[in-house]
Amino acid sequence: MTLQQILEEVKDGQLSVEHAENLLKKEGYEEMDYAKLDTTRKERTGFAEVVYCARKADEHLLNIYQKLYKEDGEVFGTRASQHQYELVKSVLPQVVYDPVSGILKIEKEKEHIGKVTVCTAGTADISVAEEAAQTAEYFGTHVERIYDVGVSGMHRLFSRLDTIQDANCVVAVAGMEGALASVMGGLVKRPVIAVPTSVGYGASFHGLSALLTMINSCANGIAVVNIDNGYGAGYLATQINRLAEGK
Amino acid sequence: MTLQQILEEVKDGQLSVEHAENLLKKEGYEEMDYAKLDTTRKERTGFAEVVYCARKADEHLLNIYQKLYKEDGEVFGTRASQHQYELVKSVLPQVVYDPVSGILKIEKEKEHIGKVTVCTAGTADISVAEEAAQTAEYFGTHVERIYDVGVSGMHRLFSRLDTIQDANCVVAVAGMEGALASVMGGLVKRPVIAVPTSVGYGASFHGLSALLTMINSCANGIAVVNIDNGYGAGYLATQINRLAEGK
Amino acid sequence: MTLQQILEEVKDGQLSVEHAENLLKKEGYEEMDYAKLDTTRKERTGFAEVVYCARKADEHLLNIYQKLYKEDGEVFGTRASQHQYELVKSVLPQVVYDPVSGILKIEKEKEHIGKVTVCTAGTADISVAEEAAQTAEYFGTHVERIYDVGVSGMHRLFSRLDTIQDANCVVAVAGMEGALASVMGGLVKRPVIAVPTSVGYGASFHGLSALLTMINSCANGIAVVNIDNGYGAGYLATQINRLAEGK
Amino acid sequence: MTLQQILEEVKDGQLSVEHAENLLKKEGYEEMDYAKLDTTRKERTGFAEVVYCARKADEHLLNIYQKLYKEDGEVFGTRASQHQYELVKSVLPQVVYDPVSGILKIEKEKEHIGKVTVCTAGTADISVAEEAAQTAEYFGTHVERIYDVGVSGMHRLFSRLDTIQDANCVVAVAGMEGALASVMGGLVKRPVIAVPTSVGYGASFHGLSALLTMINSCANGIAVVNIDNGYGAGYLATQINRLAEGK
Amino acid sequence: MTLQQILEEVKDGQLSVEHAENLLKKEGYEEMDYAKLDTTRKERTGFAEVVYCARKADEHLLNIYQKLYKEDGEVFGTRASQHQYELVKSVLPQVVYDPVSGILKIEKEKEHIGKVTVCTAGTADISVAEEAAQTAEYFGTHVERIYDVGVSGMHRLFSRLDTIQDANCVVAVAGMEGALASVMGGLVKRPVIAVPTSVGYGASFHGLSALLTMINSCANGIAVVNIDNGYGAGYLATQINRLAEGK
Amino acid sequence: MTLQQILEEVKDGQLSVEHAENLLKKEGYEEMDYAKLDTTRKERTGFAEVVYCARKADEHLLNIYQKLYKEDGEVFGTRASQHQYELVKSVLPQVVYDPVSGILKIEKEKEHIGKVTVCTAGTADISVAEEAAQTAEYFGTHVERIYDVGVSGMHRLFSRLDTIQDANCVVAVAGMEGALASVMGGLVKRPVIAVPTSVGYGASFHGLSALLTMINSCANGIAVVNIDNGYGAGYLATQINRLAEGK
Amino acid sequence: MTLQQILEEVKDGQLSVEHAENLLKKEGYEEMDYAKLDTTRKERTGFAEVVYCARKADEHLLNIYQKLYKEDGEVFGTRASQHQYELVKSVLPQVVYDPVSGILKIEKEKEHIGKVTVCTAGTADISVAEEAAQTAEYFGTHVERIYDVGVSGMHRLFSRLDTIQDANCVVAVAGMEGALASVMGGLVKRPVIAVPTSVGYGASFHGLSALLTMINSCANGIAVVNIDNGYGAGYLATQINRLAEGK
Amino acid sequence: MTLQQILEEVKDGQLSVEHAENLLKKEGYEEMDYAKLDTTRKERTGFAEVVYCARKADEHLLNIYQKLYKEDGEVFGTRASQHQYELVKSVLPQVVYDPVSGILKIEKEKEHIGKVTVCTAGTADISVAEEAAQTAEYFGTHVERIYDVGVSGMHRLFSRLDTIQDANCVVAVAGMEGALASVMGGLVKRPVIAVPTSVGYGASFHGLSALLTMINSCANGIAVVNIDNGYGAGYLATQINRLAEGK
Repeated sequence: MTLQQILEEVKDGQLSVEHAENLLKKEGYEEMDYAKLDTTRKERTGFAEVVYCARKADEHLLNIYQKLYKEDGEVFGTRASQHQYELVKSVLPQVVYDPVSGILKIEKEKEHIGKVTVCTAGTADISVAEEAAQTAEYFGTHVERIYDVGVSGMHRLFSRLDTIQDANCVVAVAGMEGALASVMGGLVKRPVIAVPTSVGYGASFHGLSALLTMINSCANGIAVVNIDNGYGAGYLATQINRLAEGK
Repeated sequence: MTLQQILEEVKDGQLSVEHAENLLKKEGYEEMDYAKLDTTRKERTGFAEVVYCARKADEHLLNIYQKLYKEDGEVFGTRASQHQYELVKSVLPQVVYDPVSGILKIEKEKEHIGKVTVCTAGTADISVAEEAAQTAEYFGTHVERIYDVGVSGMHRLFSRLDTIQDANCVVAVAGMEGALASVMGGLVKRPVIAVPTSVGYGASFHGLSALLTMINSCANGIAVVNIDNGYGAGYLATQINRLAEGK
Repeated sequence: MTLQQILEEVKDGQLSVEHAENLLKKEGYEEMDYAKLDTTRKERTGFAEVVYCARKADEHLLNIYQKLYKEDGEVFGTRASQHQYELVKSVLPQVVYDPVSGILKIEKEKEHIGKVTVCTAGTADISVAEEAAQTAEYFGTHVERIYDVGVSGMHRLFSRLDTIQDANCVVAVAGMEGALASVMGGLVKRPVIAVPTSVGYGASFHGLSALLTMINSCANGIAVVNIDNGYGAGYLATQINRLAEGK
Repeated sequence: MTLQQILEEVKDGQLSVEHAENLLKKEGYEEMDYAKLDTTRKERTGFAEVVYCARKADEHLLNIYQKLYKEDGEVFGTRASQHQYELVKSVLPQVVYDPVSGILKIEKEKEHIGKVTVCTAGTADISVAEEAAQTAEYFGTHVERIYDVGVSGMHRLFSRLDTIQDANCVVAVAGMEGALASVMGGLVKRPVIAVPTSVGYGASFHGLSALLTMINSCANGIAVVNIDNGYGAGYLATQINRLAEGK
Repeated sequence: MTLQQILEEVKDGQLSVEHAENLLKKEGYEEMDYAKLDTTRKERTGFAEVVYCARKADEHLLNIYQKLYKEDGEVFGTRASQHQYELVKSVLPQVVYDPVSGILKIEKEKEHIGKVTVCTAGTADISVAEEAAQTAEYFGTHVERIYDVGVSGMHRLFSRLDTIQDANCVVAVAGMEGALASVMGGLVKRPVIAVPTSVGYGASFHGLSALLTMINSCANGIAVVNIDNGYGAGYLATQINRLAEGK
Repeated sequence: MTLQQILEEVKDGQLSVEHAENLLKKEGYEEMDYAKLDTTRKERTGFAEVVYCARKADEHLLNIYQKLYKEDGEVFGTRASQHQYELVKSVLPQVVYDPVSGILKIEKEKEHIGKVTVCTAGTADISVAEEAAQTAEYFGTHVERIYDVGVSGMHRLFSRLDTIQDANCVVAVAGMEGALASVMGGLVKRPVIAVPTSVGYGASFHGLSALLTMINSCANGIAVVNIDNGYGAGYLATQINRLAEGK
Repeated sequence: MTLQQILEEVKDGQLSVEHAENLLKKEGYEEMDYAKLDTTRKERTGFAEVVYCARKADEHLLNIYQKLYKEDGEVFGTRASQHQYELVKSVLPQVVYDPVSGILKIEKEKEHIGKVTVCTAGTADISVAEEAAQTAEYFGTHVERIYDVGVSGMHRLFSRLDTIQDANCVVAVAGMEGALASVMGGLVKRPVIAVPTSVGYGASFHGLSALLTMINSCANGIAVVNIDNGYGAGYLATQINRLAEGK
Repeated sequence: MTLQQILEEVKDGQLSVEHAENLLKKEGYEEMDYAKLDTTRKERTGFAEVVYCARKADEHLLNIYQKLYKEDGEVFGTRASQHQYELVKSVLPQVVYDPVSGILKIEKEKEHIGKVTVCTAGTADISVAEEAAQTAEYFGTHVERIYDVGVSGMHRLFSRLDTIQDANCVVAVAGMEGALASVMGGLVKRPVIAVPTSVGYGASFHGLSALLTMINSCANGIAVVNIDNGYGAGYLATQINRLAEGK
């Protein structure tokens, strides 16, 4: 209902002043004691709320999982611990946990559209890549994974080029010096979402080196997200994939 | 011609070994003394080469502009100075210069498809925003501009929300604390390309503050590019816009 | 007693030279072996001494709590651990501990004047916000809390605008990109005390990103304190609130 | 007019839907080609718009000064150059320029209420201090200046303690190591607004050292603003001073 | 087989199109589920693959050690833990573990050619130096160790100058201020490989200070590698040593 | 024996070539397997070797303590753990351990000359201050301690000014914003040795803030050492104190 | 006159209350409009005020030079420009200017006591070294200069060791990697004052690299001052030299 | 002459004590007023002294060029300005200046041995690459140049792979994100000398980004030098090339 419609109905007496006031002020969230669940988020942004499990108190986590599951029939959380898995499992036994990515989810059957390719430079980057890939899948994206194709052995990357070049977008996950994103950017027509990871040591400064590499890339079409932010990459990839698929 | 086709033709004697070798090694660029013009770039990436004018020697700049103009009938350069404008104008009088963005171009008539909205937080960010907007337009994107809608006066932003929400993607250009991208990310369904600018003083550290803000955004769907990198934002926006328009 | 008064009394023989010398040199603190309790602080600054519990040895902490409680009938400590709570409770059973904020206190009934609003961007910022709120309350300020109103869902903030706009000052607590302070600054007439938190990951660099955002805010009337410094925010808010209430 | 009142009038037919829609969408700014002058800012925040002159094009600066002067009978700009002074003077001959602080203003007679003390550590900090002091005065605050009272000669500060201690708030402006704010914070009851300056060399890193000092102050009641941000300090000081004076 | 040879054989019918296609596309790695073992690396670079043990899952580590051992009859891993030693030992009992350097290896008898000298500034740098020395030895380099010859006691260094000056290259391992590399660079004709270590405290910032020292060395012929990167230094030293020995 | 003397004796046949060669090459240290004990250090610098206990292997630590004790009848170590205390005590039962400073020593009776004053800003700085004070005492310096005299309560410092002003030098130990050194520098004639500590949180960045403050001090006569480097301060204070006492 | 004496005289009527009040409040500086000349500094610290010329307005500089010259018969300024030299020369023709160090002075004949050695690593460090040397000389110190003895050619340093080892203290001035201070610290018994310079490029970060090197020195007895702070080094060297000479 | 030989000759009376003393103390440099020319450097390190022209005073530069030319018949300077070229040319008319690299030299005919390949990522990196290439040539190395082969167009690099793979070492010069070095390291057997350049903008931070990329490279055999340090790369490449050629 647009603003104009609301006002017309008020004028016509179809809508009370109180009701109109509520609509215009409409909070769009459900108050919980400790948090405001953003229940209109899906309408507003096209994405359901996802739970960031790290640092959540046990009781809060349980309530949120139960509430979201009841509403949507599915629920998706990132950065969950083994302990949190066991906790949620005690009340929602169908919950599934992936210890590599830390994803804790109950997922409905759904169609996966389009194509996004998720690549990593090394094997240590896989935990972040899985967060990206499973996030995109949860939001209905078809994902292909190509792991361990870092620039110190370029032939591994080139042998998979076809798979990379026909995706709607590519997620490039890399730590250390993060050069994968630049190389990828020179090879594909579509956007490259670059995810720096905290993999590395010494002057990698917990991902800062990879972040700077990606931000300064000499290649074009590189969209950078935060260090280790697989979730953000999966979200952005889904936005782009949906556009490409006419959604 | 695929690898298989080349090999078949070699086998059948339709292609000489020398020719095949050349095709397989095909360099895909034209050697100039001082640079390798990447003439197959358009095929490979869907984007023609753009000239980064800053730090180019006069003679090199002239040659590049003439060469690209002869090949494509148009040429687009960023970060050009007034001096470079006058230089190029002396041999290509139809060249057009925008001193705000530093863009120096000869542009063919072309169709502009889809819709990208380019926003700035303040008026000082406009030079970067124009680099983004005109880059996107050069690559065939329809652009709408909404400038000076920073978060210290949110009502200015909200009054233009319709225009922002129906774009294929939004470019948010902001210096100082760069909060515009986060606010935008909470309001739209589509990707937000965040461009930190070096506008600010003191602890803005020439754009570092805005860059960190955007990379750490609590909103989702934020794709960050380098500080002041309007060109990169316009390029990425075009990639996304093309996908959305089925190109 | 002013300097002039002391000198007059010395001249008139009402005050001995020794006594005057002591007054003028008056140390204003009580020597303990390991610390100088600043017992004239309340007179000088209007605020009683507060205990920073972290890193205090058990024996020292006990002595300080007992000493301050005996003098003032109340005592307030920040950053206390569960262990310290149990320690103090064994000798001062009426002590109250809030594990979220780490505050360990015995508080007298007191009037709470004026109004300060404490807001957070997310739920993870609440521990710092509670340190701010309870500090302000301990110093006699009336506090209202509005939590989880970050900029990725601006409607949650706008629905509480009345409560925010009629406070004497607003404390805005936010981690990650810290944009809440800028948005708040554009909406209220009164000072905004911005508290960056270490909530976030990757390039948030333990609160540095939020600190830079707040320091560079394009909005005016933003007073920044140290990362996670809820206590400092509650103190400053009280100073401003007292001024507003004519204290 | 509140939302409820607007809706009542729509219902009663006193207000057309179009008018109400406009009111509710009311932009609150006047569109200029290059900027959105925020003409409702004074109502919203209690402060008229101030002009940040640096980087403004000549023509834009002239228009803005003329527009604001016509509306308010006064206009206040910061970081103006000698050139800009001469420019504005050619159309507004009554304009006054202070080359030390870079302030360019036409100011109406007005009452100055309350009291704010502005201090500097050294003489090189005076340009920033004057920006703070004159900003506060423009907004109606009574200001006292105490310059060159840095901590390397504490007796200079102590001799002016009375003047410092009875202000509603103190602005402490210091570069190099910025210790003035900490010392001040231990001496006064009222808020200290700390302004780090870029005065210094070597490891002062253009004000970063002073900023860190002030943010980490062991004293309480320290509100930090950006490096060299005299304007922000004057604004914040005025907010606090108005509260103290019951405005 | 060169490209030309492959094409000639295709033309002559000696090679099928499919086989040629495979050769030209030849991936050069063996797919494992979680990683792509780079089995052509030795041919391409002259160095067999080395295992970075840190962060490897137990099962993956075991498989990699067994696979590499089966192929090469030896295997070399860095940054292994005591736990990983015991794990690998359970299936490959001949494995040898050095807890100082964290190296876990099965090594064939081999000739050690040339001469590389590995020096440390202090005793705490030895763990990194051993990683360098044992890596070089694994790759067939003759190594001499000179430890604890830091610049605060230069006579210790000078007494071993002959041994240092006739090496093919010198590895200088130092933390804290890292001055050893500069001093060494002024004393030898051959390249100095400088390895900053994270040894130190306070403003050493986990090796950043030593890294900056080495990168800014006033001496020439200094090749810097990452903080604590003994492996990289041993690898680079071997490359140089092989060149010097005509390999 | 000077170079000239050695050569004269060679010429006169009083000294064999071999012996002279040894003298001129004389290494001045005793080789241990893992370290070079610098046994001529005392002659060269006037200070016996001190043991940095952190990260030393148990066996090495024991050997070093026994060796140094046998030679000098005393031994002094810094940054020792409780475990190391018990270890050394098992073979040298007279060893004394101070858990606050981490000093582990056997100390001979000795005269303490001159006067050095060691001050701290807060109680949390005492561990570093004790490392400084006990180091200076070990090297024969008379030390006075004045703790908890930070700038947020200046009266505590001023009441002890006499004691501070007649020392040969002052050691100022402070974390957080580290302003104590600047204030001290303006009050005394003698050198101030400034020791930044890692005490603080948030933007103190583990002592970086205090270090920058001290390096940028507006006061003169400030000698800065590394963060938490109490040992270095005690050493430097002893050098200055000895000069002042004619040693 | 001590506090006790003042009070006794007040009691005895020898001193009026007003006079005593003035004495106790005695400001110890002479008010100028723009600065507070610290005329009691010499008594308090043993050093006359020195003029920091950079950024001083012409008129202010002239007044200060004339005032100080009239009072002391000499005046010493640092960081003066050629323009400032000509300015001061026009009223004080006996002024002497050293363009290398930027020192502008009128100096009385005086005795130079003790011995301080000032060394540089390279020739580009001489401007800073001269600021240190001439400052020390102005304050009555005997100085010896040894320039261009950096660690890339250690034999140059060793050939001057005698001159270095018998100074009361050594000033080591070095840019780039700043290793000179560490080497010096291992060779002398007396304090080494380390002055990092901004000489260098790339990752020297305007002296930060040299500063970190010196702060983290593995040698003892290193007192670090700010980047390029020759004046501070000369001041500190004088303090130490005076102590050594019994002043 | 070895130490033993000297002593033998003293013993035998062939060498006077004075002469031996001089030999043993032999300074190895020629004193000039402002610098110590290191004339034994060539013997010690195998490389003649090279002049760093930046910041040299005119008169000093002239003297150094004349002196070195007289001794060696050739002279080589880096970072020279046009002004310095004209200056030196006035007395040494045969001097040659390359404005791209800033090299100012008189070079003798000489043999160039071995092979070093110098590559750049872009055209803006050529100035640094030329400093490297011409330095190596001056020291007798045969150099091949391959410019503008950055990773955004990998085919340009691959077409030159043969030339790259048979060099004794490769110098990889790159700014922005500096990924060229990593890619190169995965393709060649020989050492890669990585030179980060200050080419770039925004978050490239004047070469810091490229430096971190290269230091953190996932490829092996990468030797990093300072930002823009072409000279250092050419020097190190020559050391390695000489070893490979048996010099």
